[in-house]
Amino acid sequence: MSGVASIHLVENALLVSIQDDVTDTEIIDLQDALSNRIADENVDGVIVDISALEIVDTFVGRVIAQLAGISRLLAAETYVVGMRPAVAVTLVELGMYLPQTRTALSLSHALAQLRRG
Amino acid sequence: MSGVASIHLVENALLVSIQDDVTDTEIIDLQDALSNRIADENVDGVIVDISALEIVDTFVGRVIAQLAGISRLLAAETYVVGMRPAVAVTLVELGMYLPQTRTALSLSHALAQLRRG
Repeated sequence: MSGVASIHLVENALLVSIQDDVTDTEIIDLQDALSNRIADENVDGVIVDISALEIVDTFVGRVIAQLAGISRLLAAETYVVGMRPAVAVTLVELGMYLPQTRTALSLSHALAQLRRG
Repeated sequence: MSGVASIHLVENALLVSIQDDVTDTEIIDLQDALSNRIADENVDGVIVDISALEIVDTFVGRVIAQLAGISRLLAAETYVVGMRPAVAVTLVELGMYLPQTRTALSLSHALAQLRRG
């Protein structure tokens, strides 16, 4: 379940985990909660952990792109971490290159990049 | 033939050579193999050698763009090396500016850029 509870503050970033059974309703709640937390806590970054996703489709791709778009409009950089190789291949085959996101191998890599600014 | 055998580890990058007779099936195998190698070997870069290509079309342009897209999603930088002048002209005429790739004159130039980070 990917509701409000799954947003965690880590250093100066918000960590969000996407589960593979996330629904439309949960995503809308997540978007609302995340946008408010970005504004309230004045973070530099949003880290979207997708290591739970073994496969991906256009719905999930769009979810990631929208979270990144919202974060960018609120002046936070989005990092996607934990992407599996097959997920990267599928996203590109679907034409979803996620241009507004940065990617990092792991949470610690993303935090290191955020620290460097 | 552009199968799994043509991916080589050079310093901290994976070197992939694209042949001019590459087929759709080979590209799918290459994408799968490359994405797994990027994740397994934790490389910083992917170097796509296209010096074997004397001409280029939208298929090959798309192949390069997709390899670069997959690499970026897996946190590796893509360098295209060995591009002939006529190939550069054709790619631009086709509207394929390859925004997600960097270019370098040769393998050693690409490795030098990757070392600088």
